[in-house]
Amino acid sequence: MGKYSESAIRGLVDAIVNSYEEEPDIIWMGDMDPIDPAQVQAILDDLRNLIFAGFYDKRKLKPDSVEYYAGEVVERLLYELRKQIGKALKAASGSGGALQESPKAARIEERAEQLAVEFLARIPALRAILATDVSASFEGDPAAFSKDEVVLSYPGIFAITVFRLAHELYQLDVPLIPRMMTEHAHSLTGIDIHPGATIGHHFFLDHGTGVVIGETTVIGNFVKIYQGVSLGALSTRGGQLQRGVKRHPTIEDHVTIYSGASILGGTTVVGEGVVIGSNAFITKSVPERTRVSVKNPELQYSASGREKARVIELEQDDAWYYVI
Amino acid sequence: MGKYSESAIRGLVDAIVNSYEEEPDIIWMGDMDPIDPAQVQAILDDLRNLIFAGFYDKRKLKPDSVEYYAGEVVERLLYELRKQIGKALKAASGSGGALQESPKAARIEERAEQLAVEFLARIPALRAILATDVSASFEGDPAAFSKDEVVLSYPGIFAITVFRLAHELYQLDVPLIPRMMTEHAHSLTGIDIHPGATIGHHFFLDHGTGVVIGETTVIGNFVKIYQGVSLGALSTRGGQLQRGVKRHPTIEDHVTIYSGASILGGTTVVGEGVVIGSNAFITKSVPERTRVSVKNPELQYSASGREKARVIELEQDDAWYYVI
Amino acid sequence: MGKYSESAIRGLVDAIVNSYEEEPDIIWMGDMDPIDPAQVQAILDDLRNLIFAGFYDKRKLKPDSVEYYAGEVVERLLYELRKQIGKALKAASGSGGALQESPKAARIEERAEQLAVEFLARIPALRAILATDVSASFEGDPAAFSKDEVVLSYPGIFAITVFRLAHELYQLDVPLIPRMMTEHAHSLTGIDIHPGATIGHHFFLDHGTGVVIGETTVIGNFVKIYQGVSLGALSTRGGQLQRGVKRHPTIEDHVTIYSGASILGGTTVVGEGVVIGSNAFITKSVPERTRVSVKNPELQYSASGREKARVIELEQDDAWYYVI
Repeated sequence: MGKYSESAIRGLVDAIVNSYEEEPDIIWMGDMDPIDPAQVQAILDDLRNLIFAGFYDKRKLKPDSVEYYAGEVVERLLYELRKQIGKALKAASGSGGALQESPKAARIEERAEQLAVEFLARIPALRAILATDVSASFEGDPAAFSKDEVVLSYPGIFAITVFRLAHELYQLDVPLIPRMMTEHAHSLTGIDIHPGATIGHHFFLDHGTGVVIGETTVIGNFVKIYQGVSLGALSTRGGQLQRGVKRHPTIEDHVTIYSGASILGGTTVVGEGVVIGSNAFITKSVPERTRVSVKNPELQYSASGREKARVIELEQDDAWYYVI
Repeated sequence: MGKYSESAIRGLVDAIVNSYEEEPDIIWMGDMDPIDPAQVQAILDDLRNLIFAGFYDKRKLKPDSVEYYAGEVVERLLYELRKQIGKALKAASGSGGALQESPKAARIEERAEQLAVEFLARIPALRAILATDVSASFEGDPAAFSKDEVVLSYPGIFAITVFRLAHELYQLDVPLIPRMMTEHAHSLTGIDIHPGATIGHHFFLDHGTGVVIGETTVIGNFVKIYQGVSLGALSTRGGQLQRGVKRHPTIEDHVTIYSGASILGGTTVVGEGVVIGSNAFITKSVPERTRVSVKNPELQYSASGREKARVIELEQDDAWYYVI
Repeated sequence: MGKYSESAIRGLVDAIVNSYEEEPDIIWMGDMDPIDPAQVQAILDDLRNLIFAGFYDKRKLKPDSVEYYAGEVVERLLYELRKQIGKALKAASGSGGALQESPKAARIEERAEQLAVEFLARIPALRAILATDVSASFEGDPAAFSKDEVVLSYPGIFAITVFRLAHELYQLDVPLIPRMMTEHAHSLTGIDIHPGATIGHHFFLDHGTGVVIGETTVIGNFVKIYQGVSLGALSTRGGQLQRGVKRHPTIEDHVTIYSGASILGGTTVVGEGVVIGSNAFITKSVPERTRVSVKNPELQYSASGREKARVIELEQDDAWYYVI
């Protein structure tokens, strides 16, 4: 270690350990097991392998062994979900340490197992709705080569799959894990869907980077959303005081929202069949079967090299623009 | 397993296996090998190590062993590319099962090998064009410390590298894998370039998050593009019916497109030397050597705490704004 | 290898090795060890485990073993930081080969060790400021369930943590590694903060995808920034000539900047307590306690199915809109 002695290292360590006492909010200490983010991701991988069986796996899936395949994944998922859900329930109830051996801890274990089973029982219904999402992506995108390509490579399908799984856990009141799941998808896709949102079937998210869908959003069936769309709240004032209030919009069936549009506020309802053009900023309700588009902001043209000089007359059509 | 018996687990598994029969589109079953996404990523890693030799590797690359190094990587790439390309050709031709031993399957194997060799023969030309991209990034960015830093850490270089590789496979009509490659880069960078796009040399993508470049886009040489730019289609109506139609714009040489701009439509041509300002929304052609900028939308100012009260006179210059 | 002979493979390898000679800028060859990106990420993982002790780890952290835990991580970090910092110093000084055994190389080793120790000595102060960032996220976001959830899953906290670490190394003049660190965070979060930026305490980044904070930005305390915000330069003209010039804005205390806003230019100062509305485009200074908002661009409405026909009268409130 050259000139830095053991005592210098000890000084570094002591200073860090002291800071643990000074800032105890940002350590996770005591008898509570930490929730393992790597394990949450492994659970998501297994869930994807169960839903889109055979797609992401090295092994060939064959008709006569499919039951063994599903059985093996389900067993592993039950074990891991029980474990991580148990930790999350304990962490959220503030019960660690002494509780480990208590009757309450036993009830938490039992509850975790029950939740894991209830959650897995919803997989067939989730497969049915995810099949509609894959269809919507394939049919809605001229660049889609096949449904296989959609399942293998479309980030929107990944984000929606993770959202739908996380939403089931959210509805079962499992703490912490649903948001860890959707933030994992956010990290891989740039698509940020809060697990509390409600989203119907045939949902199509194209490109997706920058999409934000807030906690209390309600989305109907056959909705298409392009990159950079925010379904958000009108203000954060109040912070924690606004917990539980509907702060995000309602989007009805067959709505299309083009890139960069923002739709905001808990009482804003976008009616059935509405089309929202790129970059529109919507804070009030829009009646059904309406098309809304930004009047294209005026553009300025000049010959390159001269600033503001010789404005050239050029018209950009300011009608209904949709970028996809 | 506490109170959940083997029969309860069996019920879960049966329900899932039944749903495989009900939604067969989203499983990959039969005698066709699945394309392994992890292997596609490993191929990309090897390709990057071959192109930017010595940069991302633990091992020192020395002049007298460089041939062994390249030889080892090429051998491994030939093997893996042949294997994954073969699977992709089989999947796209709908030939699995019985075909495995057939003359057609043998032809597919042979074709896969031929494609892998043709693809690798293009690496030297790709290295030459990627060297121009690295130069463009270094010279165009005041924050760039050195070309080494550009290669080691710039997401734009990563995305362009993966795009250029995927585009070669796309041109060789390899199915599925090109899009898996560019979506891997999209996941890591937020930059979504379809492998079908055509892009010239000295291409500079700065920051990059949110950039979308569609399938039929054509981009010339010395083009600079900043974060959040969409080169898109005007509408998705028609979906699969529009497959193969030129839906995305043409960008000529020496064009700069600043952050958040959208340029849309298959007949839109942005002429040589044009500068497009931030957030511009372009749906018609722009003649060469023009500068286009949004007339800055009117801003409203008020003293904080009072809504709409006492509007303060403040001028934001509405001239040529470019955010980088 | 079927019909492709050894000589065909040799041809591929020779062509690639020749291209190394033709494009030597994009290979890393000689006696200089490459900086291992995987190792830089491992260092970041260890630093996060040291700062948010117990959160991301499989192992339970207990009060009576916390010193051993911190000691083990610090020892490993000292070793790895010394190694990678040494490589970065050598690469940046252009000294490889012959220098390896020279007195100058010895001085670089010593300097690397000193820098690693100085850097680790700043961890306690970083923990204190990161605790304020976690508080700001929790208190500012109605969707936050607990501080644990914030630490476990908020991408803003991840990006700020990596930025604060990278910024310390940047201030210690460590080359290459700081940018590798922030680009790793950019990849995982879509949040692009240059390690040269200066950022005060209680910093809150919500959603975050698409945020860009440039090299010479200065940000005060209690600042909130939402998705898609750019703190950028007004132009890139000049490229490398502008190195070192203040090109990015100054944001004072208690400023909130809503989604999609751009604030640009090295002399632009956004005063204390200012609120910038969504999508605003700011290139001049804004006095303290002002609220700035885009006058909502005019929207056009029509009944769906008829283009431009029958414009429907609908008012979107054009007052102070903030999307979150």
